[in-house]
Amino acid sequence: MPEYKAPIRDIKFVMQELLDCDNHYQKLGYEDASLDMVDAIISEAAKFTEQVIAPINQSGDEQGCTWTNGEVTTPDGFKEAYQQYVEGGWPTLAQNVDFGGQGLPHSLNTAITELFSSANHSFAMYPGLSHGASATIEAHGSELQKSQFMPQLVEGSWTGTMCLTEPHCGTDLGMLRTKAELNDDGSYSLTGTKIFISAGEHDLSDNIVHIVIARIPGSPEGSKGISLFIVPKFNITDDGAVGDRNAVSCGSIEHKMGINANATCVINFDGAKGYLIGEVNRGLNCMFTFMNVARLGVATEGVAAAEASFQGALAYAKDRLQMRSLSGVKNPDGPADAIIVHPDVRRMLLTQKSIAEGGRALIAYLAQLVDIGHVSTCEEEKAAAETKLALLTPIAKAFLTELGLECTSHGVQVFGGHGFIKEWGMEQLMRDTKISCLYEGTTVIQALDLLARKILGSKGKILKPFGSEVTKFCLENADDDAMQEFIQPIMSFGGDWQKMTEKVGEKAMKNPDEIGAASVDYLMYSGYLTLAYFWAKMAKVAQDKLAQGTDEEAFYQAKVKTARFYFERILPRAKGHADCVENGGESMMALDADDFSF
Amino acid sequence: MPEYKAPIRDIKFVMQELLDCDNHYQKLGYEDASLDMVDAIISEAAKFTEQVIAPINQSGDEQGCTWTNGEVTTPDGFKEAYQQYVEGGWPTLAQNVDFGGQGLPHSLNTAITELFSSANHSFAMYPGLSHGASATIEAHGSELQKSQFMPQLVEGSWTGTMCLTEPHCGTDLGMLRTKAELNDDGSYSLTGTKIFISAGEHDLSDNIVHIVIARIPGSPEGSKGISLFIVPKFNITDDGAVGDRNAVSCGSIEHKMGINANATCVINFDGAKGYLIGEVNRGLNCMFTFMNVARLGVATEGVAAAEASFQGALAYAKDRLQMRSLSGVKNPDGPADAIIVHPDVRRMLLTQKSIAEGGRALIAYLAQLVDIGHVSTCEEEKAAAETKLALLTPIAKAFLTELGLECTSHGVQVFGGHGFIKEWGMEQLMRDTKISCLYEGTTVIQALDLLARKILGSKGKILKPFGSEVTKFCLENADDDAMQEFIQPIMSFGGDWQKMTEKVGEKAMKNPDEIGAASVDYLMYSGYLTLAYFWAKMAKVAQDKLAQGTDEEAFYQAKVKTARFYFERILPRAKGHADCVENGGESMMALDADDFSF
Repeated sequence: MPEYKAPIRDIKFVMQELLDCDNHYQKLGYEDASLDMVDAIISEAAKFTEQVIAPINQSGDEQGCTWTNGEVTTPDGFKEAYQQYVEGGWPTLAQNVDFGGQGLPHSLNTAITELFSSANHSFAMYPGLSHGASATIEAHGSELQKSQFMPQLVEGSWTGTMCLTEPHCGTDLGMLRTKAELNDDGSYSLTGTKIFISAGEHDLSDNIVHIVIARIPGSPEGSKGISLFIVPKFNITDDGAVGDRNAVSCGSIEHKMGINANATCVINFDGAKGYLIGEVNRGLNCMFTFMNVARLGVATEGVAAAEASFQGALAYAKDRLQMRSLSGVKNPDGPADAIIVHPDVRRMLLTQKSIAEGGRALIAYLAQLVDIGHVSTCEEEKAAAETKLALLTPIAKAFLTELGLECTSHGVQVFGGHGFIKEWGMEQLMRDTKISCLYEGTTVIQALDLLARKILGSKGKILKPFGSEVTKFCLENADDDAMQEFIQPIMSFGGDWQKMTEKVGEKAMKNPDEIGAASVDYLMYSGYLTLAYFWAKMAKVAQDKLAQGTDEEAFYQAKVKTARFYFERILPRAKGHADCVENGGESMMALDADDFSF
Repeated sequence: MPEYKAPIRDIKFVMQELLDCDNHYQKLGYEDASLDMVDAIISEAAKFTEQVIAPINQSGDEQGCTWTNGEVTTPDGFKEAYQQYVEGGWPTLAQNVDFGGQGLPHSLNTAITELFSSANHSFAMYPGLSHGASATIEAHGSELQKSQFMPQLVEGSWTGTMCLTEPHCGTDLGMLRTKAELNDDGSYSLTGTKIFISAGEHDLSDNIVHIVIARIPGSPEGSKGISLFIVPKFNITDDGAVGDRNAVSCGSIEHKMGINANATCVINFDGAKGYLIGEVNRGLNCMFTFMNVARLGVATEGVAAAEASFQGALAYAKDRLQMRSLSGVKNPDGPADAIIVHPDVRRMLLTQKSIAEGGRALIAYLAQLVDIGHVSTCEEEKAAAETKLALLTPIAKAFLTELGLECTSHGVQVFGGHGFIKEWGMEQLMRDTKISCLYEGTTVIQALDLLARKILGSKGKILKPFGSEVTKFCLENADDDAMQEFIQPIMSFGGDWQKMTEKVGEKAMKNPDEIGAASVDYLMYSGYLTLAYFWAKMAKVAQDKLAQGTDEEAFYQAKVKTARFYFERILPRAKGHADCVENGGESMMALDADDFSF
């Protein structure tokens, strides 16, 4: 199993040197988030994830969760680790002080989330889902609901879920059937079956707070007739304690490709007592409030997977001796050279490295936008941040998880046949990461959100704030010779992006299927270009540091060299995607469904 | 679990209409391989794989092989299925009549191999390895060895293995340590440990014949000091029967990402009795004789995986109702449209279909070249066939397995979250297929074989026979308007290929690392172009049939439309690879090994 080391130096580079989090936090009034505090928290998170969370990753996969008569047991060590997680105050980090939170910035929590995900994808999902539940109640719940559920969710003694999917509907939630009938006391009785409920049942916490979408009889059909409910596993007594069992049960858990240590549950509601959150029939709107944040969380999993796989592959590539370098023996005293001398091994490692580090920068940038959206008092700044976030979130989610999956496949490949063997831990990363391309909206759902809803839906207006930022950066560096290898491609690919967007828009007016036909290639192009921008920005910071003089020359040189690799060996892929978009959807729509196979 | 149906119509299209196997077999003197016989065998193989082999695929994955005190038990049903396989005479199909074979063409066996692989990757590996062992003994063994081992291997009552890898050496076999010491009776005593031995121990057959590479003390170091041995699990008595146990044992089996129903063994040789095959120190040469055939077998697994995943995804896409088509409701009576109406679902399905069908054509073509290499009496024809085979085998192996893996990932994606659940069988295809990118030489090993050893090593001569064939095809269709959408891109991409090859050659003269840096992108470009040629050929056949008039209009239309999809939506990817090759290896080699991480 690869030993996980939190990439502290790189996180600091991104947060402090690239994105000046100190200034960002002070401006937003996060007085507690001083540089020292940020450093201390990241160091502690590094220690905790390296020493407590990572060591139960492989055993957790091997053992998996077990279901017996409705009870789910998590793998050995998970309960204890979760206890330590709660005792360490980790769940409270970015939570509201009113409910026992530490009130630190969301972006600091995001940085730490990556460490948890790299160390143990399955474990990291438990708190991730609680966060979704508490955020929903905080934003839309009544005062009573907040007082009943928030403190325990914030503390972590209770955990949460999001119950959306049903057997016949995942993407298309308008088709849901779970019904909620009003009781005399103002509560509701929920009846129906939800599937794919991550952390739906387990032995980590004293109570589980399900956030459930359901239909109140008589509501409009489709997505406009969906309401949102809190359904606790155990009812709450009048004094707020855990009371008797609610009519919620776990019918079974799924056997999956990966994330085996996270229980994916069938949850049956058999007249379970639930409490309406927000207004009747506005349930999906309440859910969508948090879609960006949840999707950003999944995007982080892509980065986390690339990083974890990179670490494993790098250690192996330095250690494993096999064949001699084509350009001459590098390890004359050994029977062969370390495989890191071979160009293609480096190609795979640098692909992982450039996606992990580039993706980390993108995520950290987006997390700062979330901070601004949360607390900025400047409406203009807030609007710009939210517009950028709306544009870039689907790109980050789909692009970084698809590339994360590719990176874990490279990790297996660097190990050769050994990569296929469970013992080494590399194949688990590939199995665990595939889910990130599926949940919180599949890759094509992100692509349609980007192209149809956001870009074409806003007639391109959504592009402006981020587009202006990129243009400004290019203009600022127009006279910097050392930056031209990065600036020129961004301008060229960026120009093509604009033309491509216009063309797709025109085609879509005639035939809306052209949007779907273009969507994923369009998103991937956007992803390669977006990451190019962040790599150029990082190269700029590194070049400036090198020009100023630094005792970390190798670190900054590596940044510039990795940026160069990205531009020379990764960005060119965007061209193929552009040609696919250009070629349109006719060849995809030409076949009758019955003529796909004979 | 997706129900497997052998793609009989398409196999016939490829074998008969595209590659005129009737004429091919008659010319080579395969009198028994009449069209009727070919049809009958394929139909029987379809029935057998659909009814006997496919049904134990998922259960085999779930149960896996078990190891107890050196004995390996295959999953339920494998032993019975293998028995039926032997009783049906399947192992004997393309084997030499002198040893009990049916003497049918290799290419017919290859067509059938795809069915076995699609139905059950793990099962198909058992006979695959026996075939490697018998082919080695037939080509290099003594008359006594042939009489002792061939009849049982051909019949299938004994199975075989290839024992190459050791813990410290996989790709770099020159480092192997297993030693073979000469005994007084002319036999050898083998001592050492081999790993990753597929089918190294199991309960399917009466004996297991290991083909082992080892070093005779005093031999030259490296790959020139390797000899080849037969080491049976049970010694053979004087009258050829199974005798006492040899000192060969299975130390453990691996826990793997996939192919769980095939035992991947650690095999210990503790002074085991072995028999030299061929000459001392010529072991690797003997092994390499069969490298092309073995690699072609793995390439077939890529096609088989794409096909199996396509079938599962297609059935689901027609059945699963979710969302409405962007271009208008298609299923007004249902609550939503079948997801096959959505362009991106079609993009994924057509990617799978175009890789499966295009790959099938490439494999069938290569298998005919193997036929020619085996039995043609025309030296010129034989030489051309072997040259084409040498060029195209690494392309087929690496490109079709990488694309096969991609196709299985699309298969999971079409299912959404359900694709991640084991029950549906889609994720197993992805897990099983990853091994094909690793064994028999990883993707980069194929790429180096193609670019370094074969193309640059022959100063481009190896390109001529296949290059001439493609040029001839383009010229023949230069005046056919309907073919220009296919011919023009082949000429354009082909021209760029030539220039790219020359440039890489020039760069490599100055810096050999440029070969490794270009290799995988070069191979992928070659793969996309090669498949484009086969799609153009298939489109031509289909267009001719449509022009002549046919009662299978939909089938031939689908061929033309799928060809169009391939050219418009898959082939463009080659451009990104070309740019990566063009950009060279400097950015990959610039980082010191210690500077990859800080």
